[in-house]
Amino acid sequence: MEMDLNAQVKKACFLQRLKDFPSKLKDGVTKRIKHVQKFGKDDPRRIIHSIKVGLSLTLVSMLYYVRPLYNSFGVSGMWAILTVVVVSEFTVGGTLSKGLNRAFATLIAGALGVGAVHLARLCGHKGEPIVLGILVFSLGAAATFSRFFPRIKQRYDYGALIFILTFSMVAVSGYRTDEILVIAYQRLSTILIGGTICILVSIFVFPVWAGEDLHKMVANNIIKLANSLEGFEGEYFPSSEKTSKGTNSSVREYKSINLTSKSTEDTLANLARWEPGHGRFRLRHPWTKYLKIAGLVRQCAIHFEVLNGCVLSDAKAPQDFISKIQEPCSIISREAGEALKAIAKSIKTMSRYHVCVNTHIKNSKNAIENLRLALKVSFPETDKDLLEIIPVVTMASTLIDIVSYVEKISESVDEFSVLAHFKENLDPKLSPELGQHHLLHKGTVKPVLEGDNEEECNNSPHVVIAVHDEQPPTVNENNVNLGAEKTTVVVV
Amino acid sequence: MEMDLNAQVKKACFLQRLKDFPSKLKDGVTKRIKHVQKFGKDDPRRIIHSIKVGLSLTLVSMLYYVRPLYNSFGVSGMWAILTVVVVSEFTVGGTLSKGLNRAFATLIAGALGVGAVHLARLCGHKGEPIVLGILVFSLGAAATFSRFFPRIKQRYDYGALIFILTFSMVAVSGYRTDEILVIAYQRLSTILIGGTICILVSIFVFPVWAGEDLHKMVANNIIKLANSLEGFEGEYFPSSEKTSKGTNSSVREYKSINLTSKSTEDTLANLARWEPGHGRFRLRHPWTKYLKIAGLVRQCAIHFEVLNGCVLSDAKAPQDFISKIQEPCSIISREAGEALKAIAKSIKTMSRYHVCVNTHIKNSKNAIENLRLALKVSFPETDKDLLEIIPVVTMASTLIDIVSYVEKISESVDEFSVLAHFKENLDPKLSPELGQHHLLHKGTVKPVLEGDNEEECNNSPHVVIAVHDEQPPTVNENNVNLGAEKTTVVVV
Repeated sequence: MEMDLNAQVKKACFLQRLKDFPSKLKDGVTKRIKHVQKFGKDDPRRIIHSIKVGLSLTLVSMLYYVRPLYNSFGVSGMWAILTVVVVSEFTVGGTLSKGLNRAFATLIAGALGVGAVHLARLCGHKGEPIVLGILVFSLGAAATFSRFFPRIKQRYDYGALIFILTFSMVAVSGYRTDEILVIAYQRLSTILIGGTICILVSIFVFPVWAGEDLHKMVANNIIKLANSLEGFEGEYFPSSEKTSKGTNSSVREYKSINLTSKSTEDTLANLARWEPGHGRFRLRHPWTKYLKIAGLVRQCAIHFEVLNGCVLSDAKAPQDFISKIQEPCSIISREAGEALKAIAKSIKTMSRYHVCVNTHIKNSKNAIENLRLALKVSFPETDKDLLEIIPVVTMASTLIDIVSYVEKISESVDEFSVLAHFKENLDPKLSPELGQHHLLHKGTVKPVLEGDNEEECNNSPHVVIAVHDEQPPTVNENNVNLGAEKTTVVVV
Repeated sequence: MEMDLNAQVKKACFLQRLKDFPSKLKDGVTKRIKHVQKFGKDDPRRIIHSIKVGLSLTLVSMLYYVRPLYNSFGVSGMWAILTVVVVSEFTVGGTLSKGLNRAFATLIAGALGVGAVHLARLCGHKGEPIVLGILVFSLGAAATFSRFFPRIKQRYDYGALIFILTFSMVAVSGYRTDEILVIAYQRLSTILIGGTICILVSIFVFPVWAGEDLHKMVANNIIKLANSLEGFEGEYFPSSEKTSKGTNSSVREYKSINLTSKSTEDTLANLARWEPGHGRFRLRHPWTKYLKIAGLVRQCAIHFEVLNGCVLSDAKAPQDFISKIQEPCSIISREAGEALKAIAKSIKTMSRYHVCVNTHIKNSKNAIENLRLALKVSFPETDKDLLEIIPVVTMASTLIDIVSYVEKISESVDEFSVLAHFKENLDPKLSPELGQHHLLHKGTVKPVLEGDNEEECNNSPHVVIAVHDEQPPTVNENNVNLGAEKTTVVVV
C-alpha cells in the first residue's frame, strides 16, 4: 500500500513538473533575452560592431557570388574571408594594427618563401625537402622566439604569427606545385582585399576610436576619484548637513580604478598609436602621456583604499576631537575634489583650466595648514590616549597625501596639455593679471542661464560684472565664445 | 680658402666615420646578441618553446613531403600548418584551450555550414546567394556579439572566432562547388591532425603548465610581501643592528604585485582549468581559489604603498618617541613576515603549517598590544605636538592593518589547503594535543643537521627531545618521515 502511495505521489509530482515545464522554459528564455538586451543597451557599440562584421562578411562573399571576381581569384577568395574574420576588431586601432601587420607580414614572408623554394630547388629533388625543412624549422623557431620580446609582443605580435604562417605555407606548398608565384600573389591580393574592406568599414561605419576611449577613460577615472572624495566627506562626517551629498556607493567608486584599469589603458594606448588623426586628436597625439596620468590616478586611488579603511573602521575617535578637525578636513576633501573635477573637465573639453585648478589646490593647501593647527591645538586639551585618535590621524594624513597626488596629477595634466595643444581657457575672474587692472565697479547677480552647475568651477554659480578702466586682455574673447558652456559670464 | 678647409675637415670626418663604421657595427651587433642571449637565459623555457614550435611545423610539413599523405589530403594540408601556427601556445593550458576550441568550433560550424548550403539550394539558383548571404550575415553578427559576453570571452573567444570563420567559408564556397562535404571533411581532419601534433608536443616535450606557474606566482608574491616587511624594518629602524638584513631593493619588492599581477593571474587561472592533472595538481584543482588569495595579497600590498610613503617621508618623528615603539614595531613586522614566509612555504610544499603560521600571527598580535601600550604610555610624556608624530602613527596603524591582512591570507590559504588536499604537517612541538601528554623530560640541543634554517619555523633551529609517559599520536610518524626536510626532530 505504502509503495503504491509513494508511487502515486511521485507520479503526481512528475505530472506537475511536466505541466510547469513550458512556463518555466518561457520564464528562462525571457530572462535570458532580457539579459542579452540589457547587455546590448549598456554599450550599443557592441551591436553596431556585430552588424559591421556581418556587413564585411557579406561584402567579401561577393568574391564568390560574382562570376568575374570568382574567375580571377577562385578558391583563394577564402583567404579574404579569413582575413575579414580575424582582422575585424572592435576599435579602429585594433583593425588597423591587425590589418597592417597581416599585410606586411604576408608580403615579407611571401617573398622569403618564394626565395626559399628557389634555393631549395638548387639542391636537387632529394635535398629539397631537407633544405625546406631546415629553413621552416629555423625561421619558425626564430620568429616564435622574437614574439617573447616585450616590444615586438606589444606591437607586432600578430605580424610575427602571420610571418611564420605565410612562410611555412609558401615554402612547404612550393615543394608540390610549380605555380608558387601564383599562389603567393593570390594569397597577398585576397588578403589585401579582405583587409581593405575591414579597415574601410571600421573607419567609415560608426567608428570606435581606441584613442577616444582612452581619453574618456582617464577623465572618468579622475571624476571617480572626485566622487569618492565627496562621498567620503559625507560618510565620515555624517553630521555636516551641507556636505552629505555623497552616498555609500560613490565612496567606493575608486575601486574600479585599482583593479581593472591598468591593462585596459595599456592596450588602448597601444592601439591608439595605430589610428590616424580623428576628431580632436591629431596623428601624433601624445598617447603615452595618458598612461603617466593614469599611473598617478592609480597611485592616488591606493590612498583612497586607506581612507576607506578609516571610514569602515569601528574605532571612532571621540566626537569632540573629530569636530575640531572636521572643518579643515571637509574643506580639504571638497577643494581637492573640485580640483579633480576641474582637471577632468580640462581633459574632457581639451582646454586649460589651470587657474581654476590651482585655486582649488591652493585652497586645499590652506586647509591643510588649518588642519595642522587644529591638530596642534586639540592635542594637549584632550586627555584621551593616542590609540583612540589613531584612525582619525591616519585619515588626516591620508587626506594630506591625496592633496599632494592631486597636485602631481594637475602638474602632469598641465605638461600634457601643452603637448596636446589644449585651448587656452583663462578664467579672468580668477586670473592674477586681471587683478592689476583698476576695478571701478564689481558685483554679483543671480545666474541668467540654467546650466549644468555641478561642473562649474565655483560652487555658487553667479554672473560677475566687473567694470575696468581699461581694455582687458584679449583672452576674454575666448571666454565669451565659450559662454554657452558656462554660467559665469564676464561683462566688461 | 676657408671653404676648402671646411670641405677638407668634413671629408676627414667622413673618412673617420667610414673607418669606424665596421667596429661600431660589430659593437652594436655584439650588444644585440648579448641582449638576446640574456633574454633567453632569463627564462630558458622561451627557447624551448621556440624549438617546440619549429618541431611541430616540421612534423606537420610531412603532410606535403610524404607522397601517400599528400595524395590523401592534397592542398588541405595547409590547414594543418595554419592550425599548428595558431594553436601553439606557451602553456599546455593555452594550447589545449585553443586546440579544443578550434576543433569543436570547426565541427559545429562545418555541420551548420553544410546544412546552410543544402537549405539555400532549395531556393533555386537565384535565391541561393541571397539565402547564403542572409545566413552568413546573421550568424556572423550573432557570433560576434556573443564574443562580448565576459563568460564566453574568457573561455570560448577563439572558438567563436573559428565558428564564424568556418561557417562563412563552408557556406560561401558551397555556392561554387559540389564537393562541399569533401572540403568540410578535409578541413576538419587536417585541423585535427595539426591540433593533435601541437597538443602532443606541448604536453610531452618539456611542458609548461599554466597551473604550476600560477601556483608559483602566488607563493612568490607572498614571499615578496615578507621580504618587503623585512626590508621595511631594516630601513625604518636603521639603528637596530640585528634586523638590518633588509636592503632598499627588498622594501620595494611588493611594487611588482600591485601593477602587473592581476591580469596575469586571471589569464593563468583561466588556462589552468583546461589542463589535465599534472604533478601535484589533480584535474579539479581549485584554481579559482588562487585568485582569492592573490586578491588579498594585492590588498595587502596596497598597505605597503602607505608604509613605503612613511619610509620615504622626510618628516621623521623625534627619536625618543620612535625608540619607544621600535621594539613592538620590529616584532610585528618580523613575526608577520615569518608568518607570510610560512604561508608561502605551505603553498610551495603543498603541506599545512597552520600551527606554525598561527604562532607567528599570535606573536605579532601580542606585539600589537604592546605597541598600543607603548603608544598610550609615551603619549603624555612627550611635549611635542601631534604633527611630528603623524607619520609614525600612520606607520604603526598601517602595520596593524597589515597583520590583519596576513591573518586573512592565512585563513584563505587554510580554506584552500583543505580543497587542494594539502598534506597534514603538524609541528608536534607546537601542537596543542601534545600538551595533554604528561611531559617527563624536555630539553633543547644544537641542531645536528645543517639545513636551510632561514625557512624554518623557529628563528633558532634546535632539536627538541621530549620524553612522554605514553605513546604519542600517530601523527608523529608522518613527521619523522618528513624529517629529512626539517631540522626539528622529535625523538620519543
